[in-house]
Amino acid sequence: MKIIRCPFALLAIILVGVTTTQAQDPLPSWNDGKAKQSIVDFVAKVTKEGSPDFVPPAERIATFDNDGTLWAEQPMYFQLLFTLDRVKSLVPQHPEWKEREPFASLLKSDLKGVLAGGEKALMEIMAGTHAGMTTEEFEKIVKDWLATAKHPTTKRPYTEMVYQPMLELLAYLRANGFKTFIASGGGIEFMRAFAEKVYGIPPEQVIGSSSKLKFELREGKPVLVKLPEIDFIDDKDGKPVGIQQHIGRRPIAAFGNSDGDLQMLQWTAAGPGARFCLYVHHTDAVREWAYDRKSHIGQLDKGLDEAAAKGWTVVNMKDDWKTIFPPETK
Amino acid sequence: MKIIRCPFALLAIILVGVTTTQAQDPLPSWNDGKAKQSIVDFVAKVTKEGSPDFVPPAERIATFDNDGTLWAEQPMYFQLLFTLDRVKSLVPQHPEWKEREPFASLLKSDLKGVLAGGEKALMEIMAGTHAGMTTEEFEKIVKDWLATAKHPTTKRPYTEMVYQPMLELLAYLRANGFKTFIASGGGIEFMRAFAEKVYGIPPEQVIGSSSKLKFELREGKPVLVKLPEIDFIDDKDGKPVGIQQHIGRRPIAAFGNSDGDLQMLQWTAAGPGARFCLYVHHTDAVREWAYDRKSHIGQLDKGLDEAAAKGWTVVNMKDDWKTIFPPETK
Repeated sequence: MKIIRCPFALLAIILVGVTTTQAQDPLPSWNDGKAKQSIVDFVAKVTKEGSPDFVPPAERIATFDNDGTLWAEQPMYFQLLFTLDRVKSLVPQHPEWKEREPFASLLKSDLKGVLAGGEKALMEIMAGTHAGMTTEEFEKIVKDWLATAKHPTTKRPYTEMVYQPMLELLAYLRANGFKTFIASGGGIEFMRAFAEKVYGIPPEQVIGSSSKLKFELREGKPVLVKLPEIDFIDDKDGKPVGIQQHIGRRPIAAFGNSDGDLQMLQWTAAGPGARFCLYVHHTDAVREWAYDRKSHIGQLDKGLDEAAAKGWTVVNMKDDWKTIFPPETK
Repeated sequence: MKIIRCPFALLAIILVGVTTTQAQDPLPSWNDGKAKQSIVDFVAKVTKEGSPDFVPPAERIATFDNDGTLWAEQPMYFQLLFTLDRVKSLVPQHPEWKEREPFASLLKSDLKGVLAGGEKALMEIMAGTHAGMTTEEFEKIVKDWLATAKHPTTKRPYTEMVYQPMLELLAYLRANGFKTFIASGGGIEFMRAFAEKVYGIPPEQVIGSSSKLKFELREGKPVLVKLPEIDFIDDKDGKPVGIQQHIGRRPIAAFGNSDGDLQMLQWTAAGPGARFCLYVHHTDAVREWAYDRKSHIGQLDKGLDEAAAKGWTVVNMKDDWKTIFPPETK
């Protein structure tokens, strides 16, 4: 039942005999089955006033991983593809990158070569491509890239590589009084550049990895400069930490797709009262990609075992989702 | 004019002839004058659709300092008084503190002695009193303290040492579609323990200084442990940084009372479109405290000059506020 927030509404219904029409299916891209039913059942019980599982709206916090949960992450994380394009565009100013690791590997799209350099390599790439500009300059760079870049295999804009069933889920939760957050290993400023437009999630509800920022006056005008120094990595153990630092309240529902999300789901599940944890399992090699226990990107191994042991919802993309991506816009 | 969010409302008004009554003064504890007028004028212009100064609701971000802006901060920051009580209660387990600085000075309520040890001293005190427990244990300690502790001179609970005119201002802004945030040098977990109940500001809208957290499993149950290590200091240059990391959007209105808030006000003022910056000036030695340019706590010196130069609103507490604190509850 929809909660009527406006006291006049009831009055109007009584006075003019307006009746509510049968509710449309809020999750039309989800096939009927266990996964969809578990979502609908959870939402019904936490929103039913007087029920022992009722949760006041202020505590209806839901956190979503981004890469592989809200949008695709193959053949590699989209932010890494952005970074690759950044490196390419900056090579004229940094000709030494052609010979120097980890840039040389990145320029050859050799992800393994890049990752061989460990965290230090990623830090160097970040310092070379994501730092030194103001937050506003960086936002513009990301927005310009998203407006023109195309996914290497589907040739669609990255912002159309989002999962239609998850867009419906976000809207459904919000319509039921939930506050939806992103909690992702992706860069916080990178995700904020599109999260509001694409997911309806405002910047203050985006949690991600971040670099340190420096406040300074440039020609008397205050700016925030992105420094080549990691502030926080929002992955694995970092996810519950990032959630606590940003939200200060434990989610009652969490959504992920990899072992990097496991601690977020554990933290969510361990709170009192009704809880909901969901893993998106990439099982559709035809319409999307199929990968799990042995994947370099989005590895889902421990999480799959724990989901089975704890009875968490596991979405089988192939069977549970009627469509994967939204219709193409021209 | 109030925006009617519910389409039935208009219908009901037409059908039953309900008319809206003359709006009550939303800021009854503010005396009529320049300060109050500047607030009302700003809110009117940014909420008027079609006006060149109109700001969409999602961008109506307002940030408030806490100590000295939303609640009092004399004779010393309330969190320091909390810490003093913590040190006293932990002395039986730490008898060495009676002789060891900075604890010895703190136990004698010798604030100057404590501050003589610089940041290192404050870190040691924090490590000894604010760390080693889980976030949930710490929240309970703060709530228990707030429920019983009394202010040293007024003998009122600290949560009643809040400024009634500022409570009205928070409510007024929210009623006009603003999202209100705290951005304060105080501890983020300390403030979250009362901000929702006292200010109507949920934990996810509280930004403050923080310690590092560690995710771990205790007897199989996930917890977040507060570490004796500073994560972030949300003061001066740190305020715009904390605002960007948490909100990712520049406020259009900011409220402070000290030089520690100056960069937040500068950052807010430097954005495009209509902007509002306000300083609370502590000028009422009878009903509250009078201090500014030379105070050790809440020093307001550079800020006062910049406010005059930039035409920011400066609240003269003595003249602008009808009442300071809310009525006592029994």
